[in-house]
Amino acid sequence: MSEKNLEDILKRVNQLEITDETNILNLINSLKNAGFNAKRLALACEIYNEMINDKECIKFFGLAGALVPAGMQKVIYDFLKEGYINVLVTTGANLTHDLAEALGYHHLQGASINQNDLKDSDLYRAEINRIYDVFMPNKVYKGIEDFISNLKIPDSQMAVSSFLKFLGEQLPNDSQSILKICEQKKVPIFCPAFTDSGLALQIGFHNQKINLNHFADMIEMVNLAWDAKKAGVCFVGGGVPKNFIMQSLQFCPNSATYALQITMDRPEPGGLSGATLQEAISWGKVNENAKYSTVISDATIALPIILWFLKKSREK
Amino acid sequence: MSEKNLEDILKRVNQLEITDETNILNLINSLKNAGFNAKRLALACEIYNEMINDKECIKFFGLAGALVPAGMQKVIYDFLKEGYINVLVTTGANLTHDLAEALGYHHLQGASINQNDLKDSDLYRAEINRIYDVFMPNKVYKGIEDFISNLKIPDSQMAVSSFLKFLGEQLPNDSQSILKICEQKKVPIFCPAFTDSGLALQIGFHNQKINLNHFADMIEMVNLAWDAKKAGVCFVGGGVPKNFIMQSLQFCPNSATYALQITMDRPEPGGLSGATLQEAISWGKVNENAKYSTVISDATIALPIILWFLKKSREK
Amino acid sequence: MSEKNLEDILKRVNQLEITDETNILNLINSLKNAGFNAKRLALACEIYNEMINDKECIKFFGLAGALVPAGMQKVIYDFLKEGYINVLVTTGANLTHDLAEALGYHHLQGASINQNDLKDSDLYRAEINRIYDVFMPNKVYKGIEDFISNLKIPDSQMAVSSFLKFLGEQLPNDSQSILKICEQKKVPIFCPAFTDSGLALQIGFHNQKINLNHFADMIEMVNLAWDAKKAGVCFVGGGVPKNFIMQSLQFCPNSATYALQITMDRPEPGGLSGATLQEAISWGKVNENAKYSTVISDATIALPIILWFLKKSREK
Amino acid sequence: MSEKNLEDILKRVNQLEITDETNILNLINSLKNAGFNAKRLALACEIYNEMINDKECIKFFGLAGALVPAGMQKVIYDFLKEGYINVLVTTGANLTHDLAEALGYHHLQGASINQNDLKDSDLYRAEINRIYDVFMPNKVYKGIEDFISNLKIPDSQMAVSSFLKFLGEQLPNDSQSILKICEQKKVPIFCPAFTDSGLALQIGFHNQKINLNHFADMIEMVNLAWDAKKAGVCFVGGGVPKNFIMQSLQFCPNSATYALQITMDRPEPGGLSGATLQEAISWGKVNENAKYSTVISDATIALPIILWFLKKSREK
Repeated sequence: MSEKNLEDILKRVNQLEITDETNILNLINSLKNAGFNAKRLALACEIYNEMINDKECIKFFGLAGALVPAGMQKVIYDFLKEGYINVLVTTGANLTHDLAEALGYHHLQGASINQNDLKDSDLYRAEINRIYDVFMPNKVYKGIEDFISNLKIPDSQMAVSSFLKFLGEQLPNDSQSILKICEQKKVPIFCPAFTDSGLALQIGFHNQKINLNHFADMIEMVNLAWDAKKAGVCFVGGGVPKNFIMQSLQFCPNSATYALQITMDRPEPGGLSGATLQEAISWGKVNENAKYSTVISDATIALPIILWFLKKSREK
Repeated sequence: MSEKNLEDILKRVNQLEITDETNILNLINSLKNAGFNAKRLALACEIYNEMINDKECIKFFGLAGALVPAGMQKVIYDFLKEGYINVLVTTGANLTHDLAEALGYHHLQGASINQNDLKDSDLYRAEINRIYDVFMPNKVYKGIEDFISNLKIPDSQMAVSSFLKFLGEQLPNDSQSILKICEQKKVPIFCPAFTDSGLALQIGFHNQKINLNHFADMIEMVNLAWDAKKAGVCFVGGGVPKNFIMQSLQFCPNSATYALQITMDRPEPGGLSGATLQEAISWGKVNENAKYSTVISDATIALPIILWFLKKSREK
Repeated sequence: MSEKNLEDILKRVNQLEITDETNILNLINSLKNAGFNAKRLALACEIYNEMINDKECIKFFGLAGALVPAGMQKVIYDFLKEGYINVLVTTGANLTHDLAEALGYHHLQGASINQNDLKDSDLYRAEINRIYDVFMPNKVYKGIEDFISNLKIPDSQMAVSSFLKFLGEQLPNDSQSILKICEQKKVPIFCPAFTDSGLALQIGFHNQKINLNHFADMIEMVNLAWDAKKAGVCFVGGGVPKNFIMQSLQFCPNSATYALQITMDRPEPGGLSGATLQEAISWGKVNENAKYSTVISDATIALPIILWFLKKSREK
Repeated sequence: MSEKNLEDILKRVNQLEITDETNILNLINSLKNAGFNAKRLALACEIYNEMINDKECIKFFGLAGALVPAGMQKVIYDFLKEGYINVLVTTGANLTHDLAEALGYHHLQGASINQNDLKDSDLYRAEINRIYDVFMPNKVYKGIEDFISNLKIPDSQMAVSSFLKFLGEQLPNDSQSILKICEQKKVPIFCPAFTDSGLALQIGFHNQKINLNHFADMIEMVNLAWDAKKAGVCFVGGGVPKNFIMQSLQFCPNSATYALQITMDRPEPGGLSGATLQEAISWGKVNENAKYSTVISDATIALPIILWFLKKSREK
């Protein structure tokens, strides 16, 4: 390729300017002409926006990481409420924390500006569990147990996703929980590693015969991917949710037309969580002509920015 | 605390020396007196060694990441064969890759010294799936399907761990696979996110009525943690295997006396994969008097070193 | 410590809400009650704001990383223009890129939405240098050489900082460059590794006798730290700029009252770039009562947000 | 490219086996057929070996990070003593720590198996500086000061590299220090950010007129790169040492034929420390036909392994 040709496919980096007129829309628009992860975040905003505007696109959202304890429950709730998510795949931990907040419990943080020098052994004795710089009192489990022990589970062999819908139905209508809004908006929740959670443990302790069906969900997920006219995927934090969505696309003729991920994981150790979206092309998970962006960022920073951009874009 | 007191608890860093007499035992012994991750790796070797020597200790091993494609199948096999693992928790992906190798298929790598500039779209057309710098031809799935479609699954509601034992029994006795050696050594394999794998998809496609029991495994795992006189844990790569072992310890009176993890994940984004072992003390997962070490290293580097040290230590 | 006492020092995590009324001020204010890096970013905004409001505080700013190529030149320019920085320490690379933009050259990016598959060997032949996803045509060096070869350097033994002031004076008054605004606002620029840059190479090639004084700057920097009634530090990206500011505080009676860093580096490999701000307390670089926050984030995301917050806070 | 062609350039991943016969040579040889960072480490060993065997190759070694405090002084010493390094570029910090050890001082580590809960404010009062999990008593600086204050510096305008040679000459012949072995083996040491160190501060405090020449070193370094029949580069930890070697190759007709780096930094934030070696091809720093390998690993793990491999390879 000649120098001439190469210059044709390059354009100028604009030096970002913050002015009195800066708002979330023009900020993101400007960052598209910057570099590194700022550009990738701006592309993620733009691509997500396009996914929403594309009426044929089914939006699969993989959610890992302790986002509810970190104060992101309402952000995810709004993604669901606004219709930005059509299928949710998440971890049992996120559902456990979501239910805890729905039942009136709260996660805690240190009160002083600097991180407190709290010793983990003191926290243990005080029955307070630590999640990096967030804390959850152990009594939350007692509250979840009270709730779970009173449930009348209609079918001990129902699919996990059906059970999670049932769980959402038990919550009050004004609950700002992920479980509730999914049930209200008819967004299926898949949780392939459900038994890897405090919530499932409580269910298992109180229902010795239970055998929620994981295989039905696995097949249902492939069907959803198969039936999508177009598929868009957004992964927060990798893990099982990312792989579960990806394998459904791999084992059906479809592949993602739009693909986003927000993660701090990197490709070099070879795990799927940090794998590039380009790599997914080789598997037939992502289309070779897809629009995609990986944002290397803590989701607690990137996700609120994306939501803000998407909501403000709709407002116009 | 006075300067005097502080000096009392510190000792000299030794400058490591590589000589003609260097072997894996004295190398690791020397690195205990170094700093940073070299020291942590040496501590991990020492603590694992102590776990093995402690006859009361049940060794729980959580294995995530694409270690079989990266050439670590026999390393893990040897951990199992030598009795260094009593309970294995892993991902469906590792079992899928393990079965592929057991059926005579192989993972591939680029033949030239530098990474090949293989385009993912070309790989897609050639039906070769990429895992960072390792490749798996798609035909592997056909081989797995042939194997799976001929299985006579004895009970469609059996526990996942029972099914994995059954799967191991179907493999030839000389197979150097994880599934086989676990069955031979009576080491239970737990796979809480089993349906998040190509292996489970094949099983599901060929057995429409199957509903392997995940809850039975969840309860069984708590029982194993409960019954252990002492618990030792080793996590490679975080993810569901780490959490599944940890929650079992959290929901029983026991907590780990020895705790190791090898990971490239870090604590700051708040996810469990990168969480410190100290944090686990607050949850009652790890004992406040436990010996523990986190090694920030690609497992493909650290795991062979640890195995080499452990085998050589036994030889003496 | 009793459970009671522990609860006293913890407060509720608020679930962040993005509404029609969300603006940069209330967003950051809300994120202070979240967790993980969102909270740390919010604390960084708050602490930087406090540094500016504290009239006794001298604000030392360490800038590493290729921020000008990534479109952050005007962001840093505004930090300087608004008086948010009193002493700048940076790399020769940043000054080289800053001068290139000041001379009318531009950095480039791929024109299509996905990262282009540009081969580095093709780029080499086209004389285009790559910085991750940003590009700089080699002809920029020719332009810098033309500029440098016409300079009449007043004193071949002047301090590096004096030379950089002289360089700023040669640029047009309306230049939006870091070199220019520092000269206009009388903010000294220190560049301890100046000879590690394309700019210095051009100066050296054209001025065989030059021996800009690095030691004078080193002593001057200690004096600046010594004379500060209060010291505040902000590090973007670690490296020499961080250490140079830190050693000045270490070797004078002062230590930082406010300390911030934005970095993707982590503490575990033991390098100074990723070292915690807590660790700096042991050295007497940061005061044990300092307010501090480390934000694990790409600076291209965090820095515009902080600037936006600071400017909007002043507007009120 | 057809499937046939693709298979031609791929070969089988071998499952690594640790046996009674495992030694460092066959271990590394086996890991070349593995994946991820194990493979990259094995390639780094092989390429370094080839660099040494290539009599025309000048081996440039960039050393950043606190490796002497972490116990790696003798490892680096041996690289120099064995002739594996022809030109060393390092940080002032490494030289400061090296001199401290040469003067009989020692770095310290926690005595118990788990990391001690040492408070940084207590360490400050005890005058003990912390470097992650290694400690340096502040009195080391007093010892360095005594040494420096007695030096008769022959020329206050000498090049930094000449001064470092002079410094090495002052140390006893049996000193196992980097400064000494470089002087003995006539390996030049470049330290572009020398004034960014405690050592330079002591020199500056005691020699008010000193103006060691940094520009002479910069030009000398380009000449060394220019004159090399072949250039090989190895970077530990990025930073100024990496860039200084790279810019010398960029501004001369030569480019590296062999290129290695060991780092925990990654490319996505756009800084040079984490930049890929492929990217360096676009700049003309690394040859497009070069053999190269980036190992994502803590240097305290990778460096001893590489040295062990290289020494044992020579022994044969």
